[in-house]
Amino acid sequence: MKTAIECIPCFFRQAIEAADLLGASDRKKKQILDRVARAVPEFSLRSTPPEMAQRIHAIVREATGSADPYASLKRKSHEQAMAVCGMCRDKINRSRDALRTAVELAIAGNSIDFGVKGSLDVGAEIQKIVRREAREIKREDAHRFQYDFFIEQLDGAQDILYLADNVGETVFDRLLMEQIKIRGPRKNICYAVRGFPVLNDAVEKDAYNAGIDAYARIIGNGYDAPGTVLNKSSAAFRSLFASADLIISKGQGNFESLSERRRPLIFFLFIVKCPVVAQQVGCPVGTIMLAANRNHCHDSTG
Amino acid sequence: MKTAIECIPCFFRQAIEAADLLGASDRKKKQILDRVARAVPEFSLRSTPPEMAQRIHAIVREATGSADPYASLKRKSHEQAMAVCGMCRDKINRSRDALRTAVELAIAGNSIDFGVKGSLDVGAEIQKIVRREAREIKREDAHRFQYDFFIEQLDGAQDILYLADNVGETVFDRLLMEQIKIRGPRKNICYAVRGFPVLNDAVEKDAYNAGIDAYARIIGNGYDAPGTVLNKSSAAFRSLFASADLIISKGQGNFESLSERRRPLIFFLFIVKCPVVAQQVGCPVGTIMLAANRNHCHDSTG
Repeated sequence: MKTAIECIPCFFRQAIEAADLLGASDRKKKQILDRVARAVPEFSLRSTPPEMAQRIHAIVREATGSADPYASLKRKSHEQAMAVCGMCRDKINRSRDALRTAVELAIAGNSIDFGVKGSLDVGAEIQKIVRREAREIKREDAHRFQYDFFIEQLDGAQDILYLADNVGETVFDRLLMEQIKIRGPRKNICYAVRGFPVLNDAVEKDAYNAGIDAYARIIGNGYDAPGTVLNKSSAAFRSLFASADLIISKGQGNFESLSERRRPLIFFLFIVKCPVVAQQVGCPVGTIMLAANRNHCHDSTG
Repeated sequence: MKTAIECIPCFFRQAIEAADLLGASDRKKKQILDRVARAVPEFSLRSTPPEMAQRIHAIVREATGSADPYASLKRKSHEQAMAVCGMCRDKINRSRDALRTAVELAIAGNSIDFGVKGSLDVGAEIQKIVRREAREIKREDAHRFQYDFFIEQLDGAQDILYLADNVGETVFDRLLMEQIKIRGPRKNICYAVRGFPVLNDAVEKDAYNAGIDAYARIIGNGYDAPGTVLNKSSAAFRSLFASADLIISKGQGNFESLSERRRPLIFFLFIVKCPVVAQQVGCPVGTIMLAANRNHCHDSTG
């Protein structure tokens, strides 16, 4: 999707929140916002929001000298998600449809996001994830939660590319991959993370920490946008992207940057987090989405 | 007060909302935000928020060719406030302390503001003003609502400068001035409005439309900031400001631009509308304020 005009104030808010995490002074924050402001006229609304977010977070890192402002938040998110991992696995195993419960938990895990809401009580979010997912999803209509179509396509897919989003969410991704491998032990899953730290998004070491390597090959995408910007990604990643039978794309940033791709088949699993995306998908903030990209939408609803 | 770093995203939001009122295209809005962005590095956090807001609204007017984007909203606010004027006057006349009720209504009238909340149901706001004021104000502590100190100083004042804020609110200002003139028929009141249209703030014709000239001399301040920027105001206004025995300052914009002035005695009557001002005054958004400037605060609470 293209950047909306309403994204521009939000870019400044994101820059302030990243600088706040580092305890930057007002003077430093003003220097950062001045640099963000200078980038605005050069930025086209035809670009996707994660492309501008990439620049903003690069500015914050350069101006503060911090390579990873979200490091401690990511550590906390990982620990808190790991602490409930066993309980969630039990929940999945006890449920009538284990794969569906794993899908629901993996989407609910997307609530661990510091991009849209700058401050977040990770512990409280994780408790909400564990408690709420099934009840909320059942209220969604089939168009927003294309589970049957997802299963049908998953069963036919051999090579799956799984696009990661946030640290902590990775733990719930692992639980879903466990179920995918139970259903199809010979499927190849590749788990792609950001090439370099940005926001609280996962990089390679975070995926290893979450134990993803037991189920998938882990690859960095070669770029530091909080989304998937194909023309800036590594050749290896682009090749995997092009050849995958099915892509599982987690999070709003990956949706924002890939929503207009018609091929290959992408399922977007995320929670709608801002009014701009809500308008784009035609449903309110907070909606739990499991939806195929446009080229394939009609197959499921027709 | 100085501009907070959190005001900067809000400046962009204000520019979008003003452009939205004019039905500007996304392309036009992007041009406007590019110009606002170029102004950010030139803007010091030592300035007050209304100084930057003045620039933003000037950019919107220039870029769109509209001299007064808020014209129709102001007309509507005026009409709806006039429609309840008689009822509010009855309420004042029936109350045990008519002046206090008029003060409360005049502050409640400050909720007619398009600067902080871009969209506003004026009719609903006015109904709320009429219903709620006394109940809400009684919950406030004396430090935030220095009514006794206000009356004491009002009784001793001969020349009163009344700084207006929004159209519609003007009608409630008139009701307060009626009561001030009943209490002290020989007091001179000067009602100062913005020199030129900005946001939904009142200019001279709006004051005449509200019938203010029956109680006060009306003067434009010579500038188009949504606040009172003294060094940009006309010599005539500055002279009135310096010689007044007491200033009644309405609205958050006037507070933002005058809160650090120690002289003359200023009473700020406004509703706290944003987190930055809430932090400045130490009370939550929505608080109804009647507070003297710093130099005089101790007189009332000591």
